[in-house]
Amino acid sequence: MVLEDLYPSRTEATAQWIDRQDPVVYGKGNTNVLTQEQIENYKRDGFLIIKSVFSQEEIDLYNTEFERLSSDPILSSKEEFIKEPNSRVVRSLFAAHQFSDVYKALTDDERIRAKVEYLLDDETYVHQARINAKPGFNGKEFYWHSDFETWHVEDGMPNMRAISCLITMNENKSYNGSLMLMPGSHNKFVSCVGQTPDDHYKESLRKQEYGVPDQESLTKFYEENGIVVAECPPGSVILFDCNTMHGSNGNITPLARRNIFFVFNAVTNKLVDPFGGTKPRPDFIAHR
Amino acid sequence: MVLEDLYPSRTEATAQWIDRQDPVVYGKGNTNVLTQEQIENYKRDGFLIIKSVFSQEEIDLYNTEFERLSSDPILSSKEEFIKEPNSRVVRSLFAAHQFSDVYKALTDDERIRAKVEYLLDDETYVHQARINAKPGFNGKEFYWHSDFETWHVEDGMPNMRAISCLITMNENKSYNGSLMLMPGSHNKFVSCVGQTPDDHYKESLRKQEYGVPDQESLTKFYEENGIVVAECPPGSVILFDCNTMHGSNGNITPLARRNIFFVFNAVTNKLVDPFGGTKPRPDFIAHR
Repeated sequence: MVLEDLYPSRTEATAQWIDRQDPVVYGKGNTNVLTQEQIENYKRDGFLIIKSVFSQEEIDLYNTEFERLSSDPILSSKEEFIKEPNSRVVRSLFAAHQFSDVYKALTDDERIRAKVEYLLDDETYVHQARINAKPGFNGKEFYWHSDFETWHVEDGMPNMRAISCLITMNENKSYNGSLMLMPGSHNKFVSCVGQTPDDHYKESLRKQEYGVPDQESLTKFYEENGIVVAECPPGSVILFDCNTMHGSNGNITPLARRNIFFVFNAVTNKLVDPFGGTKPRPDFIAHR
Repeated sequence: MVLEDLYPSRTEATAQWIDRQDPVVYGKGNTNVLTQEQIENYKRDGFLIIKSVFSQEEIDLYNTEFERLSSDPILSSKEEFIKEPNSRVVRSLFAAHQFSDVYKALTDDERIRAKVEYLLDDETYVHQARINAKPGFNGKEFYWHSDFETWHVEDGMPNMRAISCLITMNENKSYNGSLMLMPGSHNKFVSCVGQTPDDHYKESLRKQEYGVPDQESLTKFYEENGIVVAECPPGSVILFDCNTMHGSNGNITPLARRNIFFVFNAVTNKLVDPFGGTKPRPDFIAHR
């Protein structure tokens, strides 16, 4: 069975705006895992910031575990460990829950999972897991993007029924490359220009070239609802819809910025063949 | 007469911390151009942020003038117009007051000049003038530096008796590459490692390589007093001491960031031969 492509991208010479075809909040009725206000904010903005969900002791544990994994010479030579350009510093670590009990337990933590499964009204599985460590002094920017655009085109995710969960592992300040989000952007799908070659993910994890939204669309989102800089203390949780436009500036400050990032996908939204026609990306980037 | 080099830099293999040998506030007694609190803050932090000094009408005039100058094909081919790497977009415009009556008048505006001359307790002249336009979407970072380090080594400025004045030409938000300052850093001179070749300024205006402070010193300043992000509405004025450590992150947002930047040097602090032994930089970068 071939699924209809509700959100075609990288097929036209100019960007197209497509109305969202899917709900934002799938959950119905009362819940004790989120307040009504939190649900409304998530629906309106496409994201929700919940400060100080995890204790400092828990965050210390996650940091220690990251350092243990990154400093293991055999482990850190695996392709799951993405280094900064021209450096041995780990910028991203993928799928750590597959080789760390500490991170495995965190993916099942009800403080996250129950909220996500209410919003998606489904059981979920981990579509992608990564730890994003933006070093101090020369941390690189991450340009604006909708994750869904990539997951749809390159991984074959059919619908907008996935939620990203970011857990802050240290102070996320306005000046050290915090996550930036464009409120309301989740309601429009912005198709990107250009074709995607096979295996481009190896480069794109270091520097993006495909799936880049056009400047006109970004300006329109910005003029409508501005930008929210997600400043948070350690242990905070940011839930955001798979189609919310987000990015982060570089970081020249001495304060590195480190976050855990889990993507939960609804089991009824499981991956099919990539809509962009390329071969599927490896399992550590998109679990099947 | 050869002046003693009070602040040697780029001569040692490791960074040295040298106590400031000069006053921060030279002015004595009462004044009606700054409040006592403003003077105390400036002395303690090494900078002072004064919001909304100029009206929107005035700021509109300065923006229109910048666009007129930048779009003039003959003018903009002059070496005073510094372009973004790999682009024709003007990143910095030097010495605009030498060919624009609008900017000339602004350098003499008493709302700035009287404050600066009180703090320096001397007549002043414009040591350097530039307009810094950090474009949206791909504005580049400007790494931490003390201006005085460069002006001393490369231009022969003997003492710390100069003040930078930044005038915001649009919204400076935390997310679009606002000026960042390290409070208290003006009280220590951090010498930089390495020698300076002749004529390196042509490259350094695009990307810095010399006069770069070490990470350990920056971390120490940060741990002592943190970082202030100078978020300001248009028409605000930031006065900062020539030795205050400052920089700015890149800018991926749609909102370009544009500032006017004048440096006023005390006439008794006029330039001598560069302390680094190189030939003097051109007049449009350091007026003599």
